[in-house]
Amino acid sequence: MAKVLTSREEDYAQWYNDLVIKADLAENSVVRGCMVIKPYGYAIWEKMQAQLDKMFKATGHSNAYFPLFIPKSFFSKEAAHVEGFAKECAVVTHYRLKNDPDGKGVVVDPDAKLEEELIIRPTSETIIWNTYKNWIQSYRDLPILINQWANVVRWEMRTRLFLRTTEFLWQEGHTAHATKNEAVEETIKIVNLYANFAEEFMAMPVIKGTKTESERFAGALETYSIEALMQDGKALQSGTSHFLGQNFAKAFDVKFLDKTGKLDLVWATSWGVSTRLMGALIMAHSDDNGLVLPPKLAPIQVVIVPIYKGSEQLGELGEIATRIKNDLEDMQISVKYDDRDTHKPGWKFAEYELKGIPVRLTLGPRDIENGTIEIARRDTLEKKTLPQEGIASYIANLLGEMQQNIYNKAFDFRSVNTFKVDTWGEFKEIINGSGGFVHAHWDGTKETEQKIKEETKATIRCIPIDSEVEPGKCVFSGKPSTRRVLFAKAY
Amino acid sequence: MAKVLTSREEDYAQWYNDLVIKADLAENSVVRGCMVIKPYGYAIWEKMQAQLDKMFKATGHSNAYFPLFIPKSFFSKEAAHVEGFAKECAVVTHYRLKNDPDGKGVVVDPDAKLEEELIIRPTSETIIWNTYKNWIQSYRDLPILINQWANVVRWEMRTRLFLRTTEFLWQEGHTAHATKNEAVEETIKIVNLYANFAEEFMAMPVIKGTKTESERFAGALETYSIEALMQDGKALQSGTSHFLGQNFAKAFDVKFLDKTGKLDLVWATSWGVSTRLMGALIMAHSDDNGLVLPPKLAPIQVVIVPIYKGSEQLGELGEIATRIKNDLEDMQISVKYDDRDTHKPGWKFAEYELKGIPVRLTLGPRDIENGTIEIARRDTLEKKTLPQEGIASYIANLLGEMQQNIYNKAFDFRSVNTFKVDTWGEFKEIINGSGGFVHAHWDGTKETEQKIKEETKATIRCIPIDSEVEPGKCVFSGKPSTRRVLFAKAY
Repeated sequence: MAKVLTSREEDYAQWYNDLVIKADLAENSVVRGCMVIKPYGYAIWEKMQAQLDKMFKATGHSNAYFPLFIPKSFFSKEAAHVEGFAKECAVVTHYRLKNDPDGKGVVVDPDAKLEEELIIRPTSETIIWNTYKNWIQSYRDLPILINQWANVVRWEMRTRLFLRTTEFLWQEGHTAHATKNEAVEETIKIVNLYANFAEEFMAMPVIKGTKTESERFAGALETYSIEALMQDGKALQSGTSHFLGQNFAKAFDVKFLDKTGKLDLVWATSWGVSTRLMGALIMAHSDDNGLVLPPKLAPIQVVIVPIYKGSEQLGELGEIATRIKNDLEDMQISVKYDDRDTHKPGWKFAEYELKGIPVRLTLGPRDIENGTIEIARRDTLEKKTLPQEGIASYIANLLGEMQQNIYNKAFDFRSVNTFKVDTWGEFKEIINGSGGFVHAHWDGTKETEQKIKEETKATIRCIPIDSEVEPGKCVFSGKPSTRRVLFAKAY
Repeated sequence: MAKVLTSREEDYAQWYNDLVIKADLAENSVVRGCMVIKPYGYAIWEKMQAQLDKMFKATGHSNAYFPLFIPKSFFSKEAAHVEGFAKECAVVTHYRLKNDPDGKGVVVDPDAKLEEELIIRPTSETIIWNTYKNWIQSYRDLPILINQWANVVRWEMRTRLFLRTTEFLWQEGHTAHATKNEAVEETIKIVNLYANFAEEFMAMPVIKGTKTESERFAGALETYSIEALMQDGKALQSGTSHFLGQNFAKAFDVKFLDKTGKLDLVWATSWGVSTRLMGALIMAHSDDNGLVLPPKLAPIQVVIVPIYKGSEQLGELGEIATRIKNDLEDMQISVKYDDRDTHKPGWKFAEYELKGIPVRLTLGPRDIENGTIEIARRDTLEKKTLPQEGIASYIANLLGEMQQNIYNKAFDFRSVNTFKVDTWGEFKEIINGSGGFVHAHWDGTKETEQKIKEETKATIRCIPIDSEVEPGKCVFSGKPSTRRVLFAKAY
């Protein structure tokens, strides 16, 4: 079987694009920058959503839904926010079409111009805080812990499937609190939740930290992020949690009576992950044969393929397959039995490898006599023949082992590609070479951050939460520094 | 406690609006015609979504996601569709804002005008069939059975929370088939699925039927709908399933090679239900005290309220409540224990009645001695005192009984308000009086349908699937008719 993907070594970006398309995850739509998420890709996203939603609810959050449209004037209310978000966005100016007087289809009806233009939400802080204003009078109304699953639009010039698209799907949490402490705690609780999700479910190790001022969310006092390392040595920001202080409460005049009867501004957080996580998941684990999915997020965990001649053999194999399928399903393992006669077994093997199905079982005529079955695992591509007896429990254990193995592999990759660097020469050599995570000292100034970016394209991904106080000298300016920060080129 | 709702008799429309607001289901947003779905309302919608999604998947459908934006020209491709949908819609004309040169906030950047305007999807047939074109070559690629959960926008002039809003949430199924029969079967399968969902989960009896030509979906050859009767005698169309023939395949040139090697156009269906179902659910069952929810869709099925003096009593009641709560949760029943000291029991009773929690348990000091508990059911407002022993199983049965009782009540209401009418005088008397469902003969012409609508505001809701062939005379024109159709005023 010819390889259907460009190899990672040959062209990593092309490999990624090939994989997304060939594994039926997503494709570009006719609308510039917008993607179609295909059923298989969407099924993985649904698994992520379901797990995250469970984790949000377990920490006291509820879902709600706010309008897609935001009045243009809202974007001017929070000074930093307007700079960050009000620029590249989709603007609705009219609300009606009419038949073209020249008979050529439809045209925009000039009489149906909106008094105030509406912006398709790039993020919902403004419309939500304008709503919270009416919900909050006293400390009894707090905290508000709301999440929204929604589509958002940012008019991106260069787009890549899942990683950066004009429209994308995400969740955005927006919470309101009576005290600063409580809001800070919420911000940290969520970045920890995201990290746990990434590591336990996506099998993707991440580094938690705070953003520098220049990389902060527009309107935030502090932004926490989780950063993962991709196989090409670039970092991918996979989730952010923002402490917004009282900025949005100020902008939308949201005050509450505290327990002592004093009027105060409400404290805010917001946080989100998006379909970008799909890009992270794909790039973190997959190989030149196709997708590698951690079993916990695989829509189909086991596929069974029969190899047979004639309907009698197929019948016998079908009975065995059905028995195993039922046993697996009793253990909440999802199984597909593929006995289609329109495709050859070899074609099916390649197809399921491409799509990252964690375990493939093959049943052939000899297995009927011997009571055996062939099992192939996607992560290591190992195959072995085992007795049918007890195969379900074996697979249940194997899936757990594979989840751990996929994590370990990514963890080891990251370890090998993480460097402590103390000289500018070494810094450039690594960043311009194979890339990776670079822990280096930084003098804390915007100017140095900017110059490093200009010279190497590396940015400060975060100031890791667990970074230790360690006196040193800035890798670029030589000025004093108290701790290392995390540099990398990034998506 | 003063009544918080306008009574249904006094002003049904006001009662509905009061209820939606006071029960914290939704509210109008600052954006004209768009609503905010509040956490409690959204939790009910999530229960509906989860059940429908399960039913779609059990019938072989997968979810996917298509762009929010549709190029304007797509609307001119299907002749009937453009008439129905391309008029009142949100039009994106620009993709950037810039700082106002006069320093007053932001303005639309005239340099960022789109070459072709984008329409916010009012429904997705066009963009989806334009995509399917690339997915379908041969009969092996068929059927395609896809559903999408999404937001859509129709620029409505008069809006009402849940019932008719500019933006709403829905699911839209879009399927592609090799044969006409298969597509027709799919259309009917889905209208049956919707009816089962409405009756089994929403406890709302519905009539299934086909729409007349003038009420059909723009672009459909046949539209099936489910129609429910609200308490004010008006019908509410609660779901539609369309057989689209080859219209969209023709418009977007989607052809496939059939088994004999012949090129043919693909057959299509589409179908949807929306947050409008929330309006149906609310209006079908609720009363002047508030919401009445069928237990299967209630986010909280049981609430436990303690009545106590001092923390010692609260401690003892808390132990009993926790035991009962655990027993109920073991049976997959959702329970809230409300021991807040910020609100009096009377306030809580009114609140949970307003929000339609099916079962309320009250624990007081005497219940500690007697081993008893007071149970109140929301549907009948009956209260009784029972032993704590075995209360969980009692409630499990009771919830089932209530689900059935709520259905029966709606069914009886509909029976009493359904009429077979043979004279125009009687027709007008009923329609202009208390309303209801009217089965009457119709001569099958658009003209008569239109005149009846003009004179009475009643429309043909559907031609019921199970209506019998029965020779008769049109209630309006006296011309011959072969079967009765269903008339009502409608939302």
